[in-house]
Amino acid sequence: MKISARNRLKGKIVEVTKGATTAHVRLDVNGTIVTASITNEAVDELKLAVGKEAFAIVKASDVMIGIDD
Amino acid sequence: MKISARNRLKGKIVEVTKGATTAHVRLDVNGTIVTASITNEAVDELKLAVGKEAFAIVKASDVMIGIDD
Amino acid sequence: MKISARNRLKGKIVEVTKGATTAHVRLDVNGTIVTASITNEAVDELKLAVGKEAFAIVKASDVMIGIDD
Amino acid sequence: MKISARNRLKGKIVEVTKGATTAHVRLDVNGTIVTASITNEAVDELKLAVGKEAFAIVKASDVMIGIDD
Amino acid sequence: MKISARNRLKGKIVEVTKGATTAHVRLDVNGTIVTASITNEAVDELKLAVGKEAFAIVKASDVMIGIDD
Amino acid sequence: MKISARNRLKGKIVEVTKGATTAHVRLDVNGTIVTASITNEAVDELKLAVGKEAFAIVKASDVMIGIDD
Repeated sequence: MKISARNRLKGKIVEVTKGATTAHVRLDVNGTIVTASITNEAVDELKLAVGKEAFAIVKASDVMIGIDD
Repeated sequence: MKISARNRLKGKIVEVTKGATTAHVRLDVNGTIVTASITNEAVDELKLAVGKEAFAIVKASDVMIGIDD
Repeated sequence: MKISARNRLKGKIVEVTKGATTAHVRLDVNGTIVTASITNEAVDELKLAVGKEAFAIVKASDVMIGIDD
Repeated sequence: MKISARNRLKGKIVEVTKGATTAHVRLDVNGTIVTASITNEAVDELKLAVGKEAFAIVKASDVMIGIDD
Repeated sequence: MKISARNRLKGKIVEVTKGATTAHVRLDVNGTIVTASITNEAVDELKLAVGKEAFAIVKASDVMIGIDD
Repeated sequence: MKISARNRLKGKIVEVTKGATTAHVRLDVNGTIVTASITNEAVDELKLAVGKEAFAIVKASDVMIGIDD
């Protein structure tokens, strides 16, 4: 499937932590850690595991801009 | 200010396009383009302009994970 | 690509309205109209047009529940 | 209350799973399962339970569009 | 309709600016201005206008926390 | 850091509840309780605790408008 979300950052999964319903998945993207909070079910369905390649995907309207003071 | 949002990707602004109310700001983050859809007012207040350093900031609950089929 | 977003509603595009930077795409999903607010660039890249089949995709953390009073 | 969110999908609750702080509520919407990740408190306040009618409500800016490759 | 979104801030509309597709609505909430970016259609449907009472409604998963350095 | 998010509501933390992965932080903002659903890690990093001053921060595209029927 192709999706309208503008942002796709390629990385490698470095941590998968399942909670009661919500999991945290961490990717190493060029040395920066990106954290995704997704459902446990998505982790199972996509078979996400440490060491696999994955993309962090973000809709443009969910990206903010920050600048140093 | 320090903020709870988990994801902060450093880049350089390569495009600022203002619409009627909504602007698109594009950052080059290690060679990957990240697009943010923010208000025109935020562009003005932060004086965002091509060539400046900035961060793409994303709350963890707004990050999805994708994998190649 | 497979994506972690839990919600995928199949429909047919009934309207595409581009604004200055932001487009509205409307799908007919089993007789209910679903509106997506996405970037003009995504409309172009996916070649979205009236009559085409498409999916409305929503992350579970972006879904609220309402009940009648 | 009337709300600006554009998308309202009527369904029947088929599952309510509470976690430590976050609950997953699943609706059957015309045969498609829609998952909402909401707070446990909202589940209690709205008395959400299997078999009740409810709406999945989504802001237009949280809807993405996908197409088959 | 009752909705699962946890946050409801009562205010008075002080500005409505329509763009090509996206409108900005500003509320005065106890002296603090709150800006909502919603569709033009929602502005029309709810007949939003300066001087009217309204609520800013936000899902808990869309709220971040900031602290002064 | 300065951030593009338009909405910043000053309050005092009245509750911090950590779940397995997701925490709920409640602020008293002029007598209205605002609930944020954030990661446990953000709670630790910002040392969020009852009685501290903090801001609820929300991107304009995550704010909906509601009106009484």
